[in-house]
Amino acid sequence: MAGSAIDKSKSIDPTLAKQVRVVAFDLDGVMTDAGVYMGVAGTERIEIKKFSTQDSVGIKLIMAAGITVAIVSGRVSEATTIRARELGIEEVIQVADARKIPPFRALLGRLGVEFDEVAFVGDDIPDVPLMKLVGLPVGVGNAVPEVQELTKYSTVRSGGAGAVREFAEALLKARGEWDNVVNQYVVSRQE
Amino acid sequence: MAGSAIDKSKSIDPTLAKQVRVVAFDLDGVMTDAGVYMGVAGTERIEIKKFSTQDSVGIKLIMAAGITVAIVSGRVSEATTIRARELGIEEVIQVADARKIPPFRALLGRLGVEFDEVAFVGDDIPDVPLMKLVGLPVGVGNAVPEVQELTKYSTVRSGGAGAVREFAEALLKARGEWDNVVNQYVVSRQE
Amino acid sequence: MAGSAIDKSKSIDPTLAKQVRVVAFDLDGVMTDAGVYMGVAGTERIEIKKFSTQDSVGIKLIMAAGITVAIVSGRVSEATTIRARELGIEEVIQVADARKIPPFRALLGRLGVEFDEVAFVGDDIPDVPLMKLVGLPVGVGNAVPEVQELTKYSTVRSGGAGAVREFAEALLKARGEWDNVVNQYVVSRQE
Amino acid sequence: MAGSAIDKSKSIDPTLAKQVRVVAFDLDGVMTDAGVYMGVAGTERIEIKKFSTQDSVGIKLIMAAGITVAIVSGRVSEATTIRARELGIEEVIQVADARKIPPFRALLGRLGVEFDEVAFVGDDIPDVPLMKLVGLPVGVGNAVPEVQELTKYSTVRSGGAGAVREFAEALLKARGEWDNVVNQYVVSRQE
Repeated sequence: MAGSAIDKSKSIDPTLAKQVRVVAFDLDGVMTDAGVYMGVAGTERIEIKKFSTQDSVGIKLIMAAGITVAIVSGRVSEATTIRARELGIEEVIQVADARKIPPFRALLGRLGVEFDEVAFVGDDIPDVPLMKLVGLPVGVGNAVPEVQELTKYSTVRSGGAGAVREFAEALLKARGEWDNVVNQYVVSRQE
Repeated sequence: MAGSAIDKSKSIDPTLAKQVRVVAFDLDGVMTDAGVYMGVAGTERIEIKKFSTQDSVGIKLIMAAGITVAIVSGRVSEATTIRARELGIEEVIQVADARKIPPFRALLGRLGVEFDEVAFVGDDIPDVPLMKLVGLPVGVGNAVPEVQELTKYSTVRSGGAGAVREFAEALLKARGEWDNVVNQYVVSRQE
Repeated sequence: MAGSAIDKSKSIDPTLAKQVRVVAFDLDGVMTDAGVYMGVAGTERIEIKKFSTQDSVGIKLIMAAGITVAIVSGRVSEATTIRARELGIEEVIQVADARKIPPFRALLGRLGVEFDEVAFVGDDIPDVPLMKLVGLPVGVGNAVPEVQELTKYSTVRSGGAGAVREFAEALLKARGEWDNVVNQYVVSRQE
Repeated sequence: MAGSAIDKSKSIDPTLAKQVRVVAFDLDGVMTDAGVYMGVAGTERIEIKKFSTQDSVGIKLIMAAGITVAIVSGRVSEATTIRARELGIEEVIQVADARKIPPFRALLGRLGVEFDEVAFVGDDIPDVPLMKLVGLPVGVGNAVPEVQELTKYSTVRSGGAGAVREFAEALLKARGEWDNVVNQYVVSRQE
């Protein structure tokens, strides 16, 4: 298990990578470290999640390559909505109790995209049904064994600690697009 | 001490595991990383705790196996109440100054459950009195020596970093129920 | 430096330990991990600090041994006041710009305690003046070199990650009081 | 890459260090751990960042050496403003979408400082354009490869975990000013 995870983390198959038109991320444990901060301020309920600014750059580079980015969360949280808006992610699915397939199928229908053209990044058992359907199932470093055995690529880093950024770089390198999108990003901000 | 902890973490005795009808968790240091976030928003007092979404799945799988889940905290905090409600945990004991035994004894009486049929997961000295009474005392990776010497199983992971999930998997595997509850979870969300 | 720190962390000199009548803690980096969480909720300014519940038990055991506990912070923060109140710490000094000596000297005068009878736990350069005056200067695992060279005991753990608890245990063991206060704590909560 | 990073972290070239009149820090991933905490308190949006109190002392010591400190962030956040005010940092540039060069060039013009007299500490691709212009480009431990290959000094510590403090000490030691500013700090607080 550990050995195959290490092999899978080396690089993404270029043929698979070039097919990708939609990249979908689970939220908790992938775009965060699986932590949920709960409590109160006076009488108001607080819920907070911790995101990574290095992941932000990765997501912007995926978008710069013309790929649609989506969030598919099995939990409903205002933090998810706020984060998506900041990153300019328009496709956000949040469903209670992890019933992710029906709304995701509807999203693909609307976009005219097949499951084979989707990369999905997950960490836990609620992600398993979607992992089985997509062309490029990806696990983060902290993914549970039930997820890892379905992946075609695994990041070394854990969710919230740069896993999304690591995947973005691996995907765009496998497509031969990394140097170009990074260079465009830098040049456009040189003055 | 370290050696015996490693041995205990291998697996749970199947006979003990099958007796379990109630799983009770201490909160701070078990369902969290022992951190308490305190401060203010303007003039309002803030108190926040950090929970794990991978633990959430573990607790739902324990419940799916028909076992009652309880929280027994020696500190009163709104964060605990909010977290319990989100997970559907109905049995929540919060007592100031760690006097956990009387309310827990009352809970077992109401449920018609004996101490032998209880697993309790703790991390610190306030958990010692309860550890001594239950059939399956469990320590998390960050448990202090006074707790570790009483445990019949110890997780490798620390509280807040997946200890609850690790215990859930160990318990359900020792009962021979893990594959079944995971499979039911996945199948029910396949469409 | 590293070598002497390791030696110092083995145990506290019993003669020094038995002289202690006041234990004073710096706040940031000692009772926390040196992190300060800042931001906003709507238009309200937020400031939060992360404390440890295992440290809480350590501080209660020091108090149970009849020792006065004080906080001496070189920064003014509402989080400090809230934390002190929760732990029952009555002696709280918070001064802007780290001018800790005059109010601490006044505190000792009021209590009738000499500097020789004080243990002070610090992590950074603002703690140096006080470290030079007290009988038992203590550094946490994350203390800077300028602090470490003044200590008579150093914890292995860092601030916010159990350093206060580790010091509490070392102090009470050096005084021969640990087993007794732990036992009293457990017995008083057995029913 | 790793080898050269380790070499670069040994010390800062004294000639470069003595030229420095302005030290500029990126915010996210340099003064923080690249985490952004987002969520809600009731209906109010929350955004929080985690800073280090050991970094605070480092920044105050840089200022005590007569060097101007600036923050140059490619993201707009109230947390940045609050942190700058607490530290007494007057020069704060916050620009959406990481277009940092024009306002920074204007700042240097106003101060009468050349790019050769600037140290800039960054972690990610948005920092690359500025790294290419300044006399002393610095990377933190968690800096991406595209940043590391441009640095003349790299800290071992990551952003938010003492990188700023480590850089402050390295800079002031290379200028031969560390012992003096530390000593002045301690003496001024001895009574």
